[in-house]
Amino acid sequence: MTIHSLNLESIATFFCDKKTPAEAARQASVDTSAELGEIRFRSGLQFEQALEDIEGFSHLWLIYSFHLHPHQWKPKVLPPRGSEKKVGVFATRSPYRPNSLGLSCVKLVERKGLILRVQSFDLLDQTPILDIKPYLSYSDSFPDASMGWLQGIQEQKLTIQLSTLAETQLQFLEDLGLREFRNVILQQLSFDPLNSQKKRVHQLNSSQAVLSYKTWRVFFKPSLHEQLIQIQEIRSGYNAKELADLQDPYQDRALHLQFLAKFNGPLLVADDEGAK
Amino acid sequence: MTIHSLNLESIATFFCDKKTPAEAARQASVDTSAELGEIRFRSGLQFEQALEDIEGFSHLWLIYSFHLHPHQWKPKVLPPRGSEKKVGVFATRSPYRPNSLGLSCVKLVERKGLILRVQSFDLLDQTPILDIKPYLSYSDSFPDASMGWLQGIQEQKLTIQLSTLAETQLQFLEDLGLREFRNVILQQLSFDPLNSQKKRVHQLNSSQAVLSYKTWRVFFKPSLHEQLIQIQEIRSGYNAKELADLQDPYQDRALHLQFLAKFNGPLLVADDEGAK
Repeated sequence: MTIHSLNLESIATFFCDKKTPAEAARQASVDTSAELGEIRFRSGLQFEQALEDIEGFSHLWLIYSFHLHPHQWKPKVLPPRGSEKKVGVFATRSPYRPNSLGLSCVKLVERKGLILRVQSFDLLDQTPILDIKPYLSYSDSFPDASMGWLQGIQEQKLTIQLSTLAETQLQFLEDLGLREFRNVILQQLSFDPLNSQKKRVHQLNSSQAVLSYKTWRVFFKPSLHEQLIQIQEIRSGYNAKELADLQDPYQDRALHLQFLAKFNGPLLVADDEGAK
Repeated sequence: MTIHSLNLESIATFFCDKKTPAEAARQASVDTSAELGEIRFRSGLQFEQALEDIEGFSHLWLIYSFHLHPHQWKPKVLPPRGSEKKVGVFATRSPYRPNSLGLSCVKLVERKGLILRVQSFDLLDQTPILDIKPYLSYSDSFPDASMGWLQGIQEQKLTIQLSTLAETQLQFLEDLGLREFRNVILQQLSFDPLNSQKKRVHQLNSSQAVLSYKTWRVFFKPSLHEQLIQIQEIRSGYNAKELADLQDPYQDRALHLQFLAKFNGPLLVADDEGAK
């Protein structure tokens, strides 16, 4: 068998607020936020012409490089949900593949010259885009396709409810730039929310648990038999000692101080697990 | 903007009877033939493990290299159907793209070790496969996606009817190894069958036309107002002089002699357009 080699160069770069894998949606279409991402094409390469007529398509395929991912592949991987045992990497969309190529279908919102604005995506900021193709419903849509080990996973999806306090807190943080937090909560808690092996979650007692995201803590009540997660409130993950640390290792002390001034929540006690 | 470079090596090779672009389906899912293609993975790279659990998926995405295509891209291309003017290449699935990557969803029939047998494909023999991903109906299926300049094209699709003679002739040729011929007829005549700019077709009179495929001729009756194409018969494209040529430049003289012995059809006269 001949081995074929191929040298590719990015044609565009993706820009959005999501910086780390934990912030991204599990798959593009499950990102129901209004956040826009921008695909900025390289200039001076006639890409203006190549993008003509793309406006008529509601959905686009992006083929991209998992640029943040170590280019090191694994034959078997533990999926974030749907299986408690490892499955073959080709039976997943995991980045641990021999050729580090990603594939996502996103919604096209508008084109402005060399920029495409898209919605409902799972890409991270600075992702190099290698190709873009129109979605063709007659050839790409198989609503009844069977999905092996993932079959039935959608039925396990939990409803996430936010208390008035949690909603106000989230909006406050979003307005101050923490725009990916809501998505993180939805991604982490919609499936298998108490799995401490797969996520930074800690059950406090039979009716309350806490999810850690960066320096923040999300307190929630899991009602698994009702397929419901009630988000009660958000708290700072800093304890008093950390909050007094002027070195500010996570560069977000000011944001926490604003949050605490507004919501007057309790600080962690010194021997609780701290901010990191 | 940073330019990202990526070096890829094929992980598998595709094997099938289709050797040239004219023989391939327009898109994978419109190939309704029973023909199987084989994806043979490279050995000695732990791909047996990486393929585990893939059997549960009915559909797979293949990302591949357009290996037969000159790596020369065009900002605008004339699509084979759906438009009489050039459109931006990113609004098409054309191979004339900056990065020569193909994307197809195929049906998985079975796995045998390092081999996947698939159906309903548009790939050509020897295509280098770069990645393979499971089709996820909840994230990949958008039956109502709008398709810009291609919108409504399915409604223009014509029904292809084969006469008893044409069906017998096709089966005879398929049994002798010309397995892709039926697909070529369906692809070429289902849309815009009399477009001599886009296909090798020639209108003989108001009720009959002929399509050339390699050294063969397909005689058909177009009834466009009824959205119907009636395939009348297949004829050899050789004239007597060419048939006597022992050099056999297309390596198919024996096949034509068998066909002519069986169906006793007329040869082309010497000044008709010959075999090529």
